[in-house]
Amino acid sequence: MKESGIDSQKIIRRKRDGELEYQPDDLTIEEPLEIRIGRKALATTMRTPGHDEELAAGFLVSEAIVREPQQIAAISTRRDNMVIVNLAPGVKLKLNSARRFGTISSSCGICGKESIEAIRQNFPAVRSSNVRIDIDTLLLLPAVLRKHQGDFARTGGIHAAAVFDLSGDLKIVREDIGRHNAVDKAIGRAFLDGLLPLDRHLLLVSGRASFEIMQKALAAGIPIVAAVSAPSTLAVSFARESNQTLIGFLRPPSFNIYSHIDRVILGAP
Amino acid sequence: MKESGIDSQKIIRRKRDGELEYQPDDLTIEEPLEIRIGRKALATTMRTPGHDEELAAGFLVSEAIVREPQQIAAISTRRDNMVIVNLAPGVKLKLNSARRFGTISSSCGICGKESIEAIRQNFPAVRSSNVRIDIDTLLLLPAVLRKHQGDFARTGGIHAAAVFDLSGDLKIVREDIGRHNAVDKAIGRAFLDGLLPLDRHLLLVSGRASFEIMQKALAAGIPIVAAVSAPSTLAVSFARESNQTLIGFLRPPSFNIYSHIDRVILGAP
Repeated sequence: MKESGIDSQKIIRRKRDGELEYQPDDLTIEEPLEIRIGRKALATTMRTPGHDEELAAGFLVSEAIVREPQQIAAISTRRDNMVIVNLAPGVKLKLNSARRFGTISSSCGICGKESIEAIRQNFPAVRSSNVRIDIDTLLLLPAVLRKHQGDFARTGGIHAAAVFDLSGDLKIVREDIGRHNAVDKAIGRAFLDGLLPLDRHLLLVSGRASFEIMQKALAAGIPIVAAVSAPSTLAVSFARESNQTLIGFLRPPSFNIYSHIDRVILGAP
Repeated sequence: MKESGIDSQKIIRRKRDGELEYQPDDLTIEEPLEIRIGRKALATTMRTPGHDEELAAGFLVSEAIVREPQQIAAISTRRDNMVIVNLAPGVKLKLNSARRFGTISSSCGICGKESIEAIRQNFPAVRSSNVRIDIDTLLLLPAVLRKHQGDFARTGGIHAAAVFDLSGDLKIVREDIGRHNAVDKAIGRAFLDGLLPLDRHLLLVSGRASFEIMQKALAAGIPIVAAVSAPSTLAVSFARESNQTLIGFLRPPSFNIYSHIDRVILGAP
């Protein structure tokens, strides 16, 4: 974690009884990170410093720029909030990838069904298999995540993404002020460790599930995504088309299943 | 609101007692919107349909592309999720604006203090004046927002941004799946109505306060920003430099003040 000048500053707190007090604050750090491929600036994201190389790797996976760790020759962090990725010799930055990148939050357009479909075709739908998770295991996951998520409780301003196996063992957890970044960091770690596709794993996010979260999960081959909060319409339609199981409002003992329910072993009601 | 095929579909809900039931769901709609200036694609954002022209206008204000409503000749909505803005004759899309746009979520780089400073210089700091809000008024605002925020309670997946005057009267409220979009819509409405700068107003956001939220508020000349949840470090440092009052965790009867406390009339403790 990078230090910030603000950490040591005091803020004014109005307590519940109306008393005012100065107190130190404990904020989530937000700083820009520029991701470069060689000399080419590819993206800037507002992120919480730490695990920046994973963030860059996960971003490249999500954008279909790389699919295997060997396609990256080196990832290096520079001061001034920059990560430089050098692709392996012979690996070209495909034009459609380069154009597609930035789609989500910048120009190029994913507007219209055709474009969404085109994104989906970058990543084939999850293959049908007998990947399933037991309901009792599923219900334990939020507590496991919370236990590992120190910063969230402290600052209330950070998101988490966690990769679990189907036994409910926590494999990777990453936090970030941006929920997409938290997912990129978790997937980036798995990618760098040669663990993709995560086709026998579940992704749990501490907040909502958007289209982009589902897309990133699909890029990593993850068949089951669970969110503590609400999914969006586009997340649900994407999950249905991509053969992904999408669970929302996972707040034990309750949850909703929006797609491909067959992967959840519900047992006798 | 655009219809989505999903609205009428059913999901599986596990209730607190463990019973499973099919129920209709009520999700926040997420769809991409492409913002064009003439034929030039400027940005694509994942947003909740509705108030798209305000969203485009607010985005252009935030990006310092336009400062007065007369600089826009026309804004029109196309099907397939596209808004086209025609600038007035003689209004040029400044290169640095065009380059700057996309900064936040795409390339171009705001990395490093110099670049953040450059953004701040696009919008002068709020001028000192005797703009102040009474603590009792401040404490009423979240309830007013919630009352107007039907969708949030229903789906749990939507953010709100509201503009209040210093008497606590709600002037504008907009909702969106993206909190930046909600702010752009609210500011865009004020801009189109010729109300900028909102130098005697307060912006309340239902979630967290990031750097971008503070930047958008500054672009609209708003001196006080209140957030129901946490601010980030960069939001706080930006607010301090921009002479903006930043209130966080506004959860009556408590709140925190992170910058320029003088605009809150705290009264006798």
